[in-house]
Amino acid sequence: MHKVLPTIDDPAQLHGLSRPELKQLAGELRDFVLDSVSRTGGHLSSNLGTVELTIALHHVFSAPYDRIVWDVGHQTYPHKILTGRRERMSTLRQRGGISGFPRRCESEFDAFGTAHSSTSISAALGMAVAAKLNGEARRAVAVIGDGALTAGEAFEALNNAGVSDVPLLVILNDNEMSISPPVGALNRYLVRLVSGRFYTGAKEGVRKMLRKSPPMLELAHKLEEHAKGLVTPATMFEEFGFNYVGPIDGHDLDSLIPALENLKRLDGPQFLHVITRKGQGYKLAEADPVLYHGPGKFNPLEGIQPAAPRRTYTAVFGEWLCDEAERDARVIGVTPAMREGSGLVEFERRFPDRYFDVGIAEQHAVTFAGGLATEGLRPVVAIYSTFLQRAYDQLIHDIALQNLPVLFAIDRAGLVGADGATHAGAYDLPYLRCIPNMTVMAPADENECRQMLHTGLQISGPSAVRYPRGVGPGVAVSAALTALPVGKGEVRRESGAAGGAGGARIAILSFGSMLAPSLAAAAHFDATVANMRFVKPIDAALIKRLAQTHDLVVTVEEGAVMGGAGSACLEVLAAEGIRVPVVQLGLPDTFVDHGDPAEQLASCGLDADGIAASLRRAIRDKLANAVVANVAPVAPVAPVAPVASARQATAKSVSPRVKAG
Amino acid sequence: MHKVLPTIDDPAQLHGLSRPELKQLAGELRDFVLDSVSRTGGHLSSNLGTVELTIALHHVFSAPYDRIVWDVGHQTYPHKILTGRRERMSTLRQRGGISGFPRRCESEFDAFGTAHSSTSISAALGMAVAAKLNGEARRAVAVIGDGALTAGEAFEALNNAGVSDVPLLVILNDNEMSISPPVGALNRYLVRLVSGRFYTGAKEGVRKMLRKSPPMLELAHKLEEHAKGLVTPATMFEEFGFNYVGPIDGHDLDSLIPALENLKRLDGPQFLHVITRKGQGYKLAEADPVLYHGPGKFNPLEGIQPAAPRRTYTAVFGEWLCDEAERDARVIGVTPAMREGSGLVEFERRFPDRYFDVGIAEQHAVTFAGGLATEGLRPVVAIYSTFLQRAYDQLIHDIALQNLPVLFAIDRAGLVGADGATHAGAYDLPYLRCIPNMTVMAPADENECRQMLHTGLQISGPSAVRYPRGVGPGVAVSAALTALPVGKGEVRRESGAAGGAGGARIAILSFGSMLAPSLAAAAHFDATVANMRFVKPIDAALIKRLAQTHDLVVTVEEGAVMGGAGSACLEVLAAEGIRVPVVQLGLPDTFVDHGDPAEQLASCGLDADGIAASLRRAIRDKLANAVVANVAPVAPVAPVAPVASARQATAKSVSPRVKAG
Repeated sequence: MHKVLPTIDDPAQLHGLSRPELKQLAGELRDFVLDSVSRTGGHLSSNLGTVELTIALHHVFSAPYDRIVWDVGHQTYPHKILTGRRERMSTLRQRGGISGFPRRCESEFDAFGTAHSSTSISAALGMAVAAKLNGEARRAVAVIGDGALTAGEAFEALNNAGVSDVPLLVILNDNEMSISPPVGALNRYLVRLVSGRFYTGAKEGVRKMLRKSPPMLELAHKLEEHAKGLVTPATMFEEFGFNYVGPIDGHDLDSLIPALENLKRLDGPQFLHVITRKGQGYKLAEADPVLYHGPGKFNPLEGIQPAAPRRTYTAVFGEWLCDEAERDARVIGVTPAMREGSGLVEFERRFPDRYFDVGIAEQHAVTFAGGLATEGLRPVVAIYSTFLQRAYDQLIHDIALQNLPVLFAIDRAGLVGADGATHAGAYDLPYLRCIPNMTVMAPADENECRQMLHTGLQISGPSAVRYPRGVGPGVAVSAALTALPVGKGEVRRESGAAGGAGGARIAILSFGSMLAPSLAAAAHFDATVANMRFVKPIDAALIKRLAQTHDLVVTVEEGAVMGGAGSACLEVLAAEGIRVPVVQLGLPDTFVDHGDPAEQLASCGLDADGIAASLRRAIRDKLANAVVANVAPVAPVAPVAPVASARQATAKSVSPRVKAG
Repeated sequence: MHKVLPTIDDPAQLHGLSRPELKQLAGELRDFVLDSVSRTGGHLSSNLGTVELTIALHHVFSAPYDRIVWDVGHQTYPHKILTGRRERMSTLRQRGGISGFPRRCESEFDAFGTAHSSTSISAALGMAVAAKLNGEARRAVAVIGDGALTAGEAFEALNNAGVSDVPLLVILNDNEMSISPPVGALNRYLVRLVSGRFYTGAKEGVRKMLRKSPPMLELAHKLEEHAKGLVTPATMFEEFGFNYVGPIDGHDLDSLIPALENLKRLDGPQFLHVITRKGQGYKLAEADPVLYHGPGKFNPLEGIQPAAPRRTYTAVFGEWLCDEAERDARVIGVTPAMREGSGLVEFERRFPDRYFDVGIAEQHAVTFAGGLATEGLRPVVAIYSTFLQRAYDQLIHDIALQNLPVLFAIDRAGLVGADGATHAGAYDLPYLRCIPNMTVMAPADENECRQMLHTGLQISGPSAVRYPRGVGPGVAVSAALTALPVGKGEVRRESGAAGGAGGARIAILSFGSMLAPSLAAAAHFDATVANMRFVKPIDAALIKRLAQTHDLVVTVEEGAVMGGAGSACLEVLAAEGIRVPVVQLGLPDTFVDHGDPAEQLASCGLDADGIAASLRRAIRDKLANAVVANVAPVAPVAPVAPVASARQATAKSVSPRVKAG
C-alpha cells in the first residue's frame, strides 16, 4: 500500500486526506514514533497516545494560523513529525538537534513553548483574546492532560476562560495518568464522569425521564431558573462556563474529527473530553506506561531490558529517606507527582502512611509541608530545582518567614541534559540564598549528599540540599548518618608553599558537583581546592583565610553565575575588606540548550579542561601583568541555530556577558 | 448592661457564654474593631465581616488545641482581640506592635502565618494529617474567602483534601469580594449556588419531589450508582469529596454555632459555606467596602474624608499606562485582583476591552500575558514584588525563556511599612537578575519611573520596572515619553578633585529609591553619586570608570543585599579585575517587621543618616588604616520581642550577618 507519511511535509496536506488515508497515516505515524524513540530515547508512552488526536487536529484546524498549544509538550512528537520535522527526529534531544518539547524558535507550528505543566490554557486564552482584539478569526486550542489539570494554574485559567467570550477550545487528554499515577479528587471525579457518560448516557436519560412526567418537568424548569446547575446535572466544566462535549474515544478518528469540526464552528469557551491510552498500539508500553514514559534507546521487539541500577543522587536520596524514616517517626516524604523521578518508590512501599504524592501541585506541596512542620513533624519535600520555582512564594512566605523546619531535597540542580533549558536547575542558588533563615547545601559526592540531607534534618529551620541529575563521582555511601558542621567548608587540596604556575598560588572555591573537575584542573596548577559545602551560611572564615594566602581566587558552581555562590564569596571578600583577583565560573547568562550532559558542561567551561583553561587565562591576564586587565570572557555556549520563525521575538542584544576576570 | 468583651482574656471563656451573651459580645466586638481601626488604620471591611464567625469558632472549637488557619489573615482583628491581644490593638501595624496578620511568633492562637492568599487549606490539611499521625484528636479549620478560592493553590489543596480521611473543616467566607470585585467562573458559580440554595432549598426539594414518584426514584438510584453526582445535584465541593453544608448566614450565631457543632463531630473533609458581608454593621463600609478595605485613621462618625490625591508611584504608573494605551492599541493591562492597589481604575474605565483582572491568579496572569505577547500585543503585568514570587516559574519558563515582550510593572518593591515582612518586595532584584533575557530597571523618581516604563515597552523581550510603595521625591512628571538608553546609568553628583573626607574619594552607586538619601549623605563627604537606573544589564563601563577614579565604592539598594544589585557591581569589578574597597548597603538578611516606612528604612541604615554613618565607618575602617579591617556591621533591625510560643521553631543562630565592609 502506498505510504502516506513520507509525503507529508506540511500539515495543511492533511486537510485533503480522506478518512481511510488518515487512518493509514495514524498507523504509519505510530510506527514512526516507536521506531524513532527506540533509536534516540525520549518520551514514548505519551506520544503513542496522541497520534490520532494530532492527526485530527491538523486535519480540522489550520496551523500555524490556528494556534495549538500542547501542555507539557512531551507528547508532541507526532506533531513535530507532521509539521516538517520528520527527518530531524533522529536528532531529537541531542546537541544541535530538535527539542523534546515545543519551542517557538524551532518551528512556527509550535505556538507556545511548554515543558512545565499546566500553562496551556492560560497561554491559549491569551492567544484567543489577542485574536479577538486583533480582529482575527483564528482559533486557539489547548491540549491538556488530566494530570496537568490538577495544578493550580490550570484551574486559574479555567476560572478565567469560562467567563470569556472568545473561541477557545480546551481538549482534555484524559489518560488517567500523569507521570506518576494520578491522585486527588479531580481524578476521581473524571473517572466517575467517564464511567457515568460511557455507560448510561445519563444526562439524556434524565431528561427523557423527566419528560414523561409533565408536572415535574415544569417544576424542574422553575427550579432550574432559580438554580441552574442544580437540577440539570452539569459537569464541573459546564459549571465553569464551558460547553462540554465528551467523553469520546481519542483513538477513533471517526469520533474525533466530527467533534472537532463541530467545536471549531462554535464561539465561546469549548471543552472536549478525550479518552486516550498512554502507549496505545505498543503492548509493552500499554502494560507499563510509567516504564515507557521516557526511556533511553531500546530494541522495540525486545522492549526495555533491565539495567544494573546506577547509584544516582536520586537513589542516594531515596535510600537516605528510608533510613531516616526508619529511625525517626517524624520524617514525612512529600512529592509533587514525581515518585519515580525523585526516588520515592521504595519509601512509598515501606512508609505508605508517611508518603504524600500531592499531584502536580508544587505550591500546595510546600505549604502542606509547612503545616506538617508546625505540628512537630519533619517533612522532606522532594522536588526538582526547576519545579521549586513554582513554589517560590510558598517557600518564602509559608516556610522561611515562619522559620519552619522543612527540608527541600532539590534534585536536578544544574544542567539536566536532554530535557534542556526548561528543566535546568540553574537559578536555585540565587533565588534561595537571598531568603533569610535558609540553609543551602550543595554536595560534592554521593556520601556528602546523604550526610547533608541528615544535616538538614537536624536544623531547626528551613534547609535545602541541591544535587545534580544522574550519577556522582562514585564515592561510597556510608551507612552512618553524621551531621556536618553547619556553615563550614573543607580544604580538599592544599597548594604547595612554592605555588603553582609561575609561582602564583591559586585557591579554587568549589561548590557541589564542581569539586571533581576542580580537583582535576587544580593538579595542573598545584592549586588549593576547597569544597565549600554550604552556599548559605557561607564559610566566611575559610574564604578569608584562602583569599589572604593565595594570589587568585576562583569560584566554581553548576548554577547561574549572576547572584550565585561565587557572588556570595565576593560579598564576603567585600565585607572583609580583602582585595584579591577573583574569577567566577558557572552557568552563563543564557538558557543552555539540550544536549549530552557532559557536552553541556563542557560548553559552559565547567569540565576539568574548561576550568583549567579559565585558570590559564586568569594567570595570563590577571597575574602575569600587574595591571588591571580586562579578561576575555569564557566562551559562551554556542547557540543552536534556530529555525526561523516570523513570530519569534527578536533576541535582545543587551544581555550581559559571561562573567570572568 | 454588663460589658462582656472587657472580661475576655482567653477564648476558652467563650465556651461558657450563653447565646445572648455571645450576641452581646458580637456587638461590643464590632464596636471595638471599628473604634480601634479608626484610630490606628488597618483593614476594616473584612474584620467587620468576621465578627460573628470568629465568636462562633472560638465558642465551638478550643484554640490553640484546635488549629484555626485564617486565609490572607487581614480579617483576624476580632480573633486577635479575643485571644489576649485586645489591649495591644492600639499598637496594630506599628513598629514594635502587633501585626496586621496572624503570626506564629506573636501568639500561640495564630496557628499559621498568613498574608498572601490561598494558603490556608494546604496548611490546615498539613495540620490535620499531622494530628492523625500524632494520634491527636484536634481539629484543623481553614477559613478562606471566595476571592482567595480562585487562586490555584486553593484548588490544589481542595484536590488533595477532598480525598483525605482527616477531619479538616474548610469554611468558605463568601462575601462576594476579594479586594477588587470578584471575577471568574467560580464566583459566578457561587452566586448561582447561593441564590439556588437560599431561595428554593433546591436539593431537599428535588429529593422530596423524586420521593413522590417511586419508580423514578428507583431509576434515579440506579443511575446514581453508575454516575454519582449526575442525578443527585451536587455542588462542586461535593464532587471534590467534601461534605458540603450551607450556605448559611455568617452573621447569625443561631445558624453558625449549631452548624459548627455538627461539623466538629464529623470525620473526613467538611465544607461550610458561610455568607457574610464586608463592612457589616458600619453603614459606610457596607456601602463601599473597597474604600474601607484598608483605610488610614479616620473619624467613624464622619467616615473617610476625601484627601488630596498623592502622586504615588502607583498613580504615576496608572497615568502612564493610560497615556501609552492611548498611543498604542497593542498595550494591554493585566492585574491579579489589584485594580485599586496597582492604579488601574482609570485604565479600566477608559480601556475596558484591554483591561484584564484575572482574579487572585498570579500564575495565570503571567502566562496569559505571554499568550497575548506571542500575538504581537504588548501586555503590561501590574503586580506587587511580593506577589510576583507566586509567578516566578511562569516568568522564567513562559516569558524569559521565550524572550517574549512582557513588561512587569512591579509595585511595592522594597519595604512597605505597616503590612510588614509578608508584603515586602525584598527579593525581586536577586530573583530577577539571574534570569537570562530580563531587563531590570529601578527608577529614582517619579518621572524616571514613567520613562522607564516607556523604555520597557520598547524592548523586544521581557522587562521589569520595580518601584517602591508610596510617594517619591516629588519630581515633576513630564508628559513626554522618552526611552532611556538601555543599560546606562548617570552620574548625578561628581566628587571634587580634592576628594571628600580626609582626601578620600567616594563613589556611591545608587539603585532606584535610594538616590535621594544617597545624594543627601554624599554632600557630607563630597562623594560622587551615580543613579544606576539598570540593575540588568548593569552599566559595567560606568562602574569601571568610577571604581578606577575613587578610593571607595558604596552600593545602595532597597532590596536584599545577598545577590542583589550591589552584588552585580561586585561581579563587574571581579570580571574587570578592579580591586577597590566596596561597601554594600541594602536590606539585611532578616525579615524586616512592620512599622512606619521611614522608621523601617532607618532601622536598616537606608536613610540619609544611615548611609552617612556607613560611609563614616567605611572611611575609618577601610581607608584610614591601610590594613585589611573587619568592619562593624550596620546595626541590624531590632527584632520585635515576640510573644513566647511553645510551638515556635527556635530561631537559627547561623544566619549570616549584614554585609558591610
